[in-house]
Amino acid sequence: MRGFAPAEFKARLAAAQAGMAEAGLGAILLTTEPEFRYFSGFLTRFWESPSRPWFLILPSQGDPVAVIPSIGAALMQSTWVRDIRTWAAPDPRDEGVSLLVAALREIGGPVGLPSGPESSLRMSLADFERVKRGSGLGFRDDAGLTARLRAIKSEAEIDKIRNSCAVAGRSFARVPEIAREGVPLAQVFRDFQRLLLEEGADFVSYLAGGAGPEGYGDVISPATERPLAKGDVLMLDTGAVCDGYFCDFDRNFAVGPPSAVTAEAHARLIEATAAGLGAARPGARACDVFAAMAAITGGGEEAGRLGHGLGLQLTEGLSLSPRDETVLAEGMVITLEPGIETGPGRIMVHEENIVIRAGEAERLSPFAGPEIVVL
Amino acid sequence: MRGFAPAEFKARLAAAQAGMAEAGLGAILLTTEPEFRYFSGFLTRFWESPSRPWFLILPSQGDPVAVIPSIGAALMQSTWVRDIRTWAAPDPRDEGVSLLVAALREIGGPVGLPSGPESSLRMSLADFERVKRGSGLGFRDDAGLTARLRAIKSEAEIDKIRNSCAVAGRSFARVPEIAREGVPLAQVFRDFQRLLLEEGADFVSYLAGGAGPEGYGDVISPATERPLAKGDVLMLDTGAVCDGYFCDFDRNFAVGPPSAVTAEAHARLIEATAAGLGAARPGARACDVFAAMAAITGGGEEAGRLGHGLGLQLTEGLSLSPRDETVLAEGMVITLEPGIETGPGRIMVHEENIVIRAGEAERLSPFAGPEIVVL
Repeated sequence: MRGFAPAEFKARLAAAQAGMAEAGLGAILLTTEPEFRYFSGFLTRFWESPSRPWFLILPSQGDPVAVIPSIGAALMQSTWVRDIRTWAAPDPRDEGVSLLVAALREIGGPVGLPSGPESSLRMSLADFERVKRGSGLGFRDDAGLTARLRAIKSEAEIDKIRNSCAVAGRSFARVPEIAREGVPLAQVFRDFQRLLLEEGADFVSYLAGGAGPEGYGDVISPATERPLAKGDVLMLDTGAVCDGYFCDFDRNFAVGPPSAVTAEAHARLIEATAAGLGAARPGARACDVFAAMAAITGGGEEAGRLGHGLGLQLTEGLSLSPRDETVLAEGMVITLEPGIETGPGRIMVHEENIVIRAGEAERLSPFAGPEIVVL
Repeated sequence: MRGFAPAEFKARLAAAQAGMAEAGLGAILLTTEPEFRYFSGFLTRFWESPSRPWFLILPSQGDPVAVIPSIGAALMQSTWVRDIRTWAAPDPRDEGVSLLVAALREIGGPVGLPSGPESSLRMSLADFERVKRGSGLGFRDDAGLTARLRAIKSEAEIDKIRNSCAVAGRSFARVPEIAREGVPLAQVFRDFQRLLLEEGADFVSYLAGGAGPEGYGDVISPATERPLAKGDVLMLDTGAVCDGYFCDFDRNFAVGPPSAVTAEAHARLIEATAAGLGAARPGARACDVFAAMAAITGGGEEAGRLGHGLGLQLTEGLSLSPRDETVLAEGMVITLEPGIETGPGRIMVHEENIVIRAGEAERLSPFAGPEIVVL
């Protein structure tokens, strides 16, 4: 099934409204894609265009109000949102400001805005000032409410992430079809995205990776035209999307027989992942799961963390780092992403996806074994 | 060639600094992907993760300063930027704020921020307040400076957009391989993205479209599983990316012989595009190009505009709408995107990409002919 039943959105709204009552908010104003989609079901790639702002207001009582460009009206009518107000955007003279101001005045404040870690406001600062002035309402942070709600996934959401993981799992199994000595990394990147689409991804929002002797320099660089060489470790890390939900995991491959360093590093990463899996239980803190993995890899926090939340975005919510004391709870979907240094400026990183359950966490990605796959 | 020569970045910076002197700015602070990339050359898909903010400061004199998460250090060192300051992000206790404050105090204000149409600030509102307070500097808008600079493309930029257009053009020519009566639209979407990758796209950041009898309901909805049927018009609209630069154009196809309404609407769209091409000359205003096309389609401004700027983003800068009086200048890359109503709630949209030249504009996409391609 695509999307969610209206009951799911009603439950999300009810939870938000309970939190709003506690936080003393009259409304929450959402401007960014994941929050907007979480409460409305509005799914489109059109957010790629920065030209138009989109606004969703959650009132403290009653149903959401969408204040959106007219180009989105037809799609919005297919969601559960009924109160849809549109303007002919882009309009540099009034980019939805007066319509938004009127809706906010009708609903009343104070208005909560996601303002904490990872948040941003997807509208121009100039228009934000106009909205604050025009509405005469108080604006403040949403007390972390939307982030906390999104962190606990429903079973319907978990099903979608599990599906994205399965798509990527089948694609990783086919990497030997496309990658071997002599193939340029950029070609591998293009072909791997093709495999993800063939296996059922709606789109491939993220692909990163690297290749080099016994490891790679980083995990965010675009691919170069350098051909794979014997002794390389190839890593592919993907955020494929099905029905709006991401997976985010990777696989390492040895180009030709792996060196002892490579084989040992890979086995160590798998061991660290298993330790993370064991530690990732309700009541444990994010930093505890970090510690369980770091004890085996000896640090490896080059990326700033050894895992993170996952769902409507490639990364969202908590970080498995010494600095994050978020307490894990059932329904949280996270990645386990240990890294290890294999030489000067060389690393290997492994990543899997899990959901926190009452006992041991459930594996969402098909966990890799300790032996690195040889191409 | 991937990326740009350092001279290109130096020229961009010099132009920005000339504008800053005029606007009385001590620095410009950039937080969003396209602006960050425009001045630094830092290209990664990692922006898909919202967890870490990235900051680039353009001082009124001297070279840019990058204040970035340590995960980006290796990639940033491969750019022309030399002053790179990193922190171990994510760090909820201090997400780069103190590092950014120190750099801004060193450089001095007032600090200009892109604040006009299409802009947003990619950092949390809470941290933005901390930076303003901590630096003690004045913050104001950048007087539209970064948007104006980006609007005029260099020949090296135009080459990259031309390449993306060629990739999409070859892919559109292969649509008959993947689309015919009975194939679900969602499958066509997946397969078309595959074709784009096969033809050389680095990634497919945008694909939209629609299918229906004599037209489609909108141009931003995700694909459904509905199979293509005889009499349908299929439209695919793509923003494929090569080396960080987008194309953005579409093609319509008739599933089986087109009706008179379909054939006539398509011919009219091509005629409107030609009129837009004729009108798109230096000195003409965006609204003039709109008027030239609207005179032929009889309005068709359902999408709010009949074209827009293009380059580092799928859409950027001016809008071909009655409300935009931006004066066209050589080097601006824009889309011509007329639309036409073919029935109640049914539209057809056509789109091509051009660059404004001294005489007639140069076609970047391989312009379609008046006869709709039959599948």
